[in-house]
Amino acid sequence: MGKVAIMMGSKSDLEIMSKAEEFFKEQKISFSTFVASAHRTPEKVHQIAQDIEKEYDVVIAAAGMAAHLPGVVAALVTKPVIGVPINSSPLGGMDSLLAIVQMPTGIPVATVAINGAKNAAILAMQMLALKDAKIASAFRAYRKSLKA
Amino acid sequence: MGKVAIMMGSKSDLEIMSKAEEFFKEQKISFSTFVASAHRTPEKVHQIAQDIEKEYDVVIAAAGMAAHLPGVVAALVTKPVIGVPINSSPLGGMDSLLAIVQMPTGIPVATVAINGAKNAAILAMQMLALKDAKIASAFRAYRKSLKA
Amino acid sequence: MGKVAIMMGSKSDLEIMSKAEEFFKEQKISFSTFVASAHRTPEKVHQIAQDIEKEYDVVIAAAGMAAHLPGVVAALVTKPVIGVPINSSPLGGMDSLLAIVQMPTGIPVATVAINGAKNAAILAMQMLALKDAKIASAFRAYRKSLKA
Amino acid sequence: MGKVAIMMGSKSDLEIMSKAEEFFKEQKISFSTFVASAHRTPEKVHQIAQDIEKEYDVVIAAAGMAAHLPGVVAALVTKPVIGVPINSSPLGGMDSLLAIVQMPTGIPVATVAINGAKNAAILAMQMLALKDAKIASAFRAYRKSLKA
Amino acid sequence: MGKVAIMMGSKSDLEIMSKAEEFFKEQKISFSTFVASAHRTPEKVHQIAQDIEKEYDVVIAAAGMAAHLPGVVAALVTKPVIGVPINSSPLGGMDSLLAIVQMPTGIPVATVAINGAKNAAILAMQMLALKDAKIASAFRAYRKSLKA
Amino acid sequence: MGKVAIMMGSKSDLEIMSKAEEFFKEQKISFSTFVASAHRTPEKVHQIAQDIEKEYDVVIAAAGMAAHLPGVVAALVTKPVIGVPINSSPLGGMDSLLAIVQMPTGIPVATVAINGAKNAAILAMQMLALKDAKIASAFRAYRKSLKA
Amino acid sequence: MGKVAIMMGSKSDLEIMSKAEEFFKEQKISFSTFVASAHRTPEKVHQIAQDIEKEYDVVIAAAGMAAHLPGVVAALVTKPVIGVPINSSPLGGMDSLLAIVQMPTGIPVATVAINGAKNAAILAMQMLALKDAKIASAFRAYRKSLKA
Amino acid sequence: MGKVAIMMGSKSDLEIMSKAEEFFKEQKISFSTFVASAHRTPEKVHQIAQDIEKEYDVVIAAAGMAAHLPGVVAALVTKPVIGVPINSSPLGGMDSLLAIVQMPTGIPVATVAINGAKNAAILAMQMLALKDAKIASAFRAYRKSLKA
Repeated sequence: MGKVAIMMGSKSDLEIMSKAEEFFKEQKISFSTFVASAHRTPEKVHQIAQDIEKEYDVVIAAAGMAAHLPGVVAALVTKPVIGVPINSSPLGGMDSLLAIVQMPTGIPVATVAINGAKNAAILAMQMLALKDAKIASAFRAYRKSLKA
Repeated sequence: MGKVAIMMGSKSDLEIMSKAEEFFKEQKISFSTFVASAHRTPEKVHQIAQDIEKEYDVVIAAAGMAAHLPGVVAALVTKPVIGVPINSSPLGGMDSLLAIVQMPTGIPVATVAINGAKNAAILAMQMLALKDAKIASAFRAYRKSLKA
Repeated sequence: MGKVAIMMGSKSDLEIMSKAEEFFKEQKISFSTFVASAHRTPEKVHQIAQDIEKEYDVVIAAAGMAAHLPGVVAALVTKPVIGVPINSSPLGGMDSLLAIVQMPTGIPVATVAINGAKNAAILAMQMLALKDAKIASAFRAYRKSLKA
Repeated sequence: MGKVAIMMGSKSDLEIMSKAEEFFKEQKISFSTFVASAHRTPEKVHQIAQDIEKEYDVVIAAAGMAAHLPGVVAALVTKPVIGVPINSSPLGGMDSLLAIVQMPTGIPVATVAINGAKNAAILAMQMLALKDAKIASAFRAYRKSLKA
Repeated sequence: MGKVAIMMGSKSDLEIMSKAEEFFKEQKISFSTFVASAHRTPEKVHQIAQDIEKEYDVVIAAAGMAAHLPGVVAALVTKPVIGVPINSSPLGGMDSLLAIVQMPTGIPVATVAINGAKNAAILAMQMLALKDAKIASAFRAYRKSLKA
Repeated sequence: MGKVAIMMGSKSDLEIMSKAEEFFKEQKISFSTFVASAHRTPEKVHQIAQDIEKEYDVVIAAAGMAAHLPGVVAALVTKPVIGVPINSSPLGGMDSLLAIVQMPTGIPVATVAINGAKNAAILAMQMLALKDAKIASAFRAYRKSLKA
Repeated sequence: MGKVAIMMGSKSDLEIMSKAEEFFKEQKISFSTFVASAHRTPEKVHQIAQDIEKEYDVVIAAAGMAAHLPGVVAALVTKPVIGVPINSSPLGGMDSLLAIVQMPTGIPVATVAINGAKNAAILAMQMLALKDAKIASAFRAYRKSLKA
Repeated sequence: MGKVAIMMGSKSDLEIMSKAEEFFKEQKISFSTFVASAHRTPEKVHQIAQDIEKEYDVVIAAAGMAAHLPGVVAALVTKPVIGVPINSSPLGGMDSLLAIVQMPTGIPVATVAINGAKNAAILAMQMLALKDAKIASAFRAYRKSLKA
């Protein structure tokens, strides 16, 4: 069964990112959470990226300001990387949105809304559903539940 | 083997989106291209969405201005939807970027850069690689080729 | 006599949109309020749109973030649709404004200011006044009252 | 039968606004075009506004930069006013968009996309259709034609 | 001796604009304050403009959102008009700034910073100093006092 | 009779600023043009500022990008300073607009539109008219001519 | 050993800039703090600049709104100037960022993030480390400490 | 004597960055130019960073769009890193500016203007001048030459 790695640049991002964790718990999807800064601890990011490449299917990476973590991880793994721009500066998250979504040709990051932690988790589940019929079925049930 | 549906709101988007088609041809990934406007031909979009749900694994949807097509399709299918903001107004694509990426909780769109057609195709390939070892292997080869 | 349909993507928009309801009550204009998300409940939006097409004259549709509801409804009905961008993200409503106003050629949305619920109601009354002399007269009285 | 007044702040706006005129000619809707600047010729704007109040049903007003014309006219007539932001400065039309759409409570302007002359005409037709069954029928035909 | 007219679109602007009044009181400069909306009470604005043209030397006009008052007054008087963009929407005053400063050729508005009421008053004093040696001398004293 | 000093940060600004010169020639208003950079030649700016303080009544200062010249001059003279943001970077003049208009309390700059050289000259004429009845009369004639 | 001059336009900037002072105290780097406004007290800025040129190696200059202080100082000294945009207006610091970073060719300012006082101090230490092996060694130790 | 490393994410950036090379040639400052993408060739960036740490004093790093190269290099070396935002998307360089300047606490990048290659070189020379009296003397001569 598929596994998701949640990465974030700073522990303070957990306030937002816990919504992704909660969604995975509800949906019984395996995940691990890693805190590592692309800038302060680049070696740790590289180490985690090597583990992800072997053991995980999808990555969610969140960061604020000049948010490099999603792009840096996307360059190190071949698995799809979902980026969550965190609103952590006076610019309302426009800085992290552009620093994540505007990736140059070759290395995409699947970007969701500013602070969109739950949508990142939903998108990760949709990707896992591609290879796992049980998750696909659970996802269809989740989508039906939205209509209620 | 996985299949990708490329949708766009207007034929004029094909100038940008042909880069996604070219990438799929190079990588021998099956795809179909559909032109349908979320606004002018909503019924056609619904019809295509029903076909996609049955026969495709990943959707790429491109649109400009108040770019609703990616979100509208994302609401109609359970497969992951990749959104490509097209720069087709005097605002440099900021309108289509925000209209695609800022999706509300429940229905994410995996957004790439403005005019980022090729990156959308690369991301789609990464998703297909989750369930198809041959595509995964081809993708690793593609990534190595970037380094040359 | 004319009737207005007020639609909104989420119950939380009611805090802003109640100002439109209050204006209609003051002016004795018939209206109904519908909560339906273009993304989470697209079928419900379609159903409501069919009812609107038969029984209402003007639509007010409010939504935040990647605000698709006004444009989606505008594509489904022939009646004029007034869009209200709701400020519900860290971007100050710029996302919903652009996602509503920048509609492509063919399907316009009559957009008012961010959080401009009351102005949406006033504009709806001006449209109803085109076909109803009593409402036209009441509107002229309202406009005079602004000067006091 | 309904009549539309098209106003613009400068003759140079006609390049964009002629698309509204063409639409009205195609749809056989009566219209008149007025060029008058809210700033250089305010008395002329007032005079035209008085004529509009008596003889027209809907106003389309276009202007660029600090685009006051739509709001100024909206303050002088009780008929619905549709505003068209013209892109005529280095800011891509963001200046005219905000100067038109962000009207304060009491005097709305029904704003369409930057340079959205044709959509303004379509919206005007939708308003006229409220009181004229023949126009309503023609509009339903127009909307069907979009699907072809 | 010179006189300044302070105009504002709404009583709520007085919270900001009182800083201009205080500066004039400190500097013993004659002023009158008028509250009139370019949109809700255009006739009142016209009436005040006629009085200003005869009895005042400089105008300060403040407004928020689609801030038309400074431009509308500038079109009606030949005296210099200073515009103060008020921050009264979720856009941080960017809407009122652009709606005031981006005036088309022919009718300028001397724009100061968002909420810059005191600087508007200082600028008005600099203009009055052009014709009144006593005010010029007082202004030089004020500028020296800034250095203390 | 009043005199205007036109300053600009770079010779390349003359392409825009020549419209101010032309207006002054048409209106027979005395002016001198100075090219001096607040950054490359600050001493020259100081020297010119001292001359301006003695011999000129109004200053027009134009600059692009991080446009400091208007504010720097405003700090050195007591005469009113009109700032013209020049569009000379990929940001459409938003950088120079904010760097000129957002002056802190104490030292205002009377800002006009991006590239608004002619409006700067018109505003300067309005200021000179405060102390010179002949210029005031000429200005009223100019304003009438706009209506033709 | 190297010395850093910290300048700021207003005492209120000290709330942010004290983080630079704290960093220098921790790292035992010599610094002096000066409060002087480029606009209200330009002579004081010139005087401080002359002292800096003789006795300091690096300058940190902070300012908000139309933030001219960093550029003005950069024009007066040959030492590298680090600019800190302060968020002190409703525009979230975008005004001060652009007014600092968009310096024209010839006089650069090394700009850090909005409110980025600590990063300015870190950057100053990196510059001092170029000429002082002890500071270079301390900086390598600081960088290692970030990883803990 | 000091040495500067010029890095850029793509060969196409050389069109802009050659102005930095020209400046160094004129000033007889040693430099090397490296082309390596933070995303497509992260290992190459790491390798170059290790060389830089040993043999260079200052880094200039240029990149467009989600411009991560300057921040990624800044995380790998202790030498000061100057970032040049390249305008290579429809957003006028706002994306690269924010992705470079808004670095989180701990790892600053000394950011210059969009496309500001020459200013980056000037800033690098100012840094080298801190430890090399001959470069300091040459820089003072350069600054004097600006005034001519």
